[in-house]
Amino acid sequence: MSSEAVCAVGAEQVPYFRTPEFSEIMFENEKLMIEFAGAGEGARAVFITGSGTASMEASLINLFTSEDKVLVIDGGSFGHRFVEMLEIHDIPHSIIKPEFSHGVTAEMLAEYDGKGFTGFLVNIDETSVGVLYDIKVISDFCTRNNIFLVVDSISSFLCDPLNMEKMNVQALITGSQKALACPPGISAIVLSKEAVERVYRNNPKCMYLDLKLALKNGERGQTPFTPAVGTLRQINTRLKEIKAAGGVEAEIKRIGGLAQYFRIKIKELGLPFEVLSDSLPNAVTPLVPTNGKSAYEVFTVLKDEYNIWICPNGGDLKDKLFRVGHIGALTTKDFDTLLNAMCDMKQRGLI
Amino acid sequence: MSSEAVCAVGAEQVPYFRTPEFSEIMFENEKLMIEFAGAGEGARAVFITGSGTASMEASLINLFTSEDKVLVIDGGSFGHRFVEMLEIHDIPHSIIKPEFSHGVTAEMLAEYDGKGFTGFLVNIDETSVGVLYDIKVISDFCTRNNIFLVVDSISSFLCDPLNMEKMNVQALITGSQKALACPPGISAIVLSKEAVERVYRNNPKCMYLDLKLALKNGERGQTPFTPAVGTLRQINTRLKEIKAAGGVEAEIKRIGGLAQYFRIKIKELGLPFEVLSDSLPNAVTPLVPTNGKSAYEVFTVLKDEYNIWICPNGGDLKDKLFRVGHIGALTTKDFDTLLNAMCDMKQRGLI
Repeated sequence: MSSEAVCAVGAEQVPYFRTPEFSEIMFENEKLMIEFAGAGEGARAVFITGSGTASMEASLINLFTSEDKVLVIDGGSFGHRFVEMLEIHDIPHSIIKPEFSHGVTAEMLAEYDGKGFTGFLVNIDETSVGVLYDIKVISDFCTRNNIFLVVDSISSFLCDPLNMEKMNVQALITGSQKALACPPGISAIVLSKEAVERVYRNNPKCMYLDLKLALKNGERGQTPFTPAVGTLRQINTRLKEIKAAGGVEAEIKRIGGLAQYFRIKIKELGLPFEVLSDSLPNAVTPLVPTNGKSAYEVFTVLKDEYNIWICPNGGDLKDKLFRVGHIGALTTKDFDTLLNAMCDMKQRGLI
Repeated sequence: MSSEAVCAVGAEQVPYFRTPEFSEIMFENEKLMIEFAGAGEGARAVFITGSGTASMEASLINLFTSEDKVLVIDGGSFGHRFVEMLEIHDIPHSIIKPEFSHGVTAEMLAEYDGKGFTGFLVNIDETSVGVLYDIKVISDFCTRNNIFLVVDSISSFLCDPLNMEKMNVQALITGSQKALACPPGISAIVLSKEAVERVYRNNPKCMYLDLKLALKNGERGQTPFTPAVGTLRQINTRLKEIKAAGGVEAEIKRIGGLAQYFRIKIKELGLPFEVLSDSLPNAVTPLVPTNGKSAYEVFTVLKDEYNIWICPNGGDLKDKLFRVGHIGALTTKDFDTLLNAMCDMKQRGLI
C-alpha cells in the first residue's frame, strides 16, 4: 500500500526531467538512501529503471569479474537467481544451500574460512520462503576473510536493521515496491566508497547496466537514460515521509511492531496456519495452512470475497505457502480486518 | 501529456500482478501493440521495465551475434548509441553517417549492396535532431539484400506510418513515454515471427535482457521479473483509447495534423525560428533560433514565465536547437497557447 501523498504524485503529469528541478529531487533521493542504509563517507546511491533483478545483475557484473571467487546462498528462488547470473557471466562460485526455510549458522560458514573466496552474495530476506539470514554471522565471516559482501536487501531495506558501515556491507540492493511502498519500476543500489572504486575499475559488457554511467550522471543529479521519472518523484515523497517520521529506525520499529501484532494474533485466535520460517523477517510472515487446504485458494478467496490482497507463492510452493506483508501504508486496523476475514473463513469451513 | 484516464490510473494503488486479471491486461497490451505495428502472423510483443535503451540493447543482443555484419545509421545521439552497443558486444558493423540533419538516400545505400551485410539498425526518427529516415528506401535496400531490419521507433511509433509486415521490419522498438503518452519506465519490442525464432536460437549473456524469458512468460500474460505494473496498466488504458478512436491510422493522422498546424503557423506569424530538418517526423519539430538567441534560454523562459514545456537539447546542441513535440494529449488549442507565448517573447525582444 502506498501512502495518499505517493498516490497523488502518481496522478500528476510527468515533467521533462533534464532540468535542475529534477536533479534536486535525485540529489535528495541519493542522500536519503545513503543515510537510511548507513553507508558512510564516500558512498553513492544509483537508481536503475528496472526490476530488482536488473540491480542484482548490475551489482554482479560491475562488482565481480571472472577473477573473483564468490560464495552465494541459494536458499530460495531469489538466491537461485544469483546462482544463475554467476553462471551466465562466468564468475567462479560456490553455493551454500541451507535446509528449506532455515537460515545459515556461523558453523556452516566456518567451513569456507580461508578457502580464497573474494565475494559473497546473499538475499538477506529470502522472501520466497520468508527467511531472514543473520547479517551479523555473515558479516563476521566476510570481515575475517576479507570478502567483498553484496547484500540484496530488496524486501528487507527499511524493515530489518542493517547498517552497511557497521556490517561491512559494500553494496546494498533494494526496490521501489517493497518497504519504499511505491509502484514497481525502480531498483536502487547503495555503494560503499570501496564499491564505487571497484565499479570505476570494471568494464561490464552491458551498456544499460553499466554503473559507471549511472555514477557519472548522478554527479549532476541525472541518469544516463530516461528513467521512470514519475516513480522517482514518488520515491522522493516517500523518503521524505520516512525522514519526517523519525527516519529508518522509526520505520523499522513500526513495521516490526505490525509483524509482531499479527503473529501473536494468529496464535491467539487459533487460526489453522503454521508460521514456517525459523528466522523471520519483519517484512513478511510466511504461513502454511495446517489442515490440507490450498494456500493459493486462501489468497483467491480473500481477494475475490473479502477484497483483501495477501501474497501467494508461485511454482512448487503455490498450494503450500502464502505470505502476509507488513510493509507500506498499513496499520493494526488493516491486520484486524484481515484476521476477521480469516476467522470468518474458518467458520465457513474454508480454512 | 497523458490523458485524464491515464493519470487516473496513476493515482491508484498498484495491485499484486501474478494474477489472471493482470495477465488479461498484458494479453490485451500485446495484441494491440502487434496490431498497431502491423507485425503480421506469428508476431509477439514484449514489455521491458527499463528505458528505450534497455530495449535497444535487448534487441541487439538477442537478434545479432558476432557472426553478423550489421549496417547502422549514426545520424545523431541515438544512432550513435547503437554504434557504442555494437562495440560493447563485439558485433561486426559498418557505420553510415548522414550529413547533420539530413536523411539517407537510395544512392547512399546502394553503395552497400552485395557487401554481405546481415543486419540493419536504424532509429527511424533520430529525434535528437528531428530527422525521419525514409523507411521505404531502407526497406527496399534490406529486402533486396536479404538483411534483417531492426527499427528503433521509440519516438515514431503511432506518429509516422510504419507497417512492419509491408516494410519487412523484423523488430520494432518503442517506449511508454512518447506517443503512448504514459510515464516513462516501460519499453516494448514487437518481434516478427522470424525474429521470435531468432530470439529462441540465441543465448545473450544477460539475464535481465534475455528476451527468451520475456517471450516464455508472455505466453501466460506475465513477465519474468516484477514489471512496472502501474505503467503497464496505464499503457493498457492508452492503447484502448487509441483503438476506440480509430486505431493507429487515426492517431497518426491526428498527430500529423497538429504538426502541420504548428509548422504553418510558425511561418505565418514570422517567428524567428528555422525548421532544421529536411525530413521531418510528425512527432516533433526541431527549431533553430535565427537571431542568435540561445535555444536553451527559449526553453527556460517558456517553462518559468509561461508554464509551457518544450523540449531542449543537451550536449553540443543545447544552445542551438530546441524541439516542439506534437504527441500525447494535445490539441490545436495547446499550440495556440505556445504560439501566443512565442509572439509575446518576440515582442519583449527575448527571441
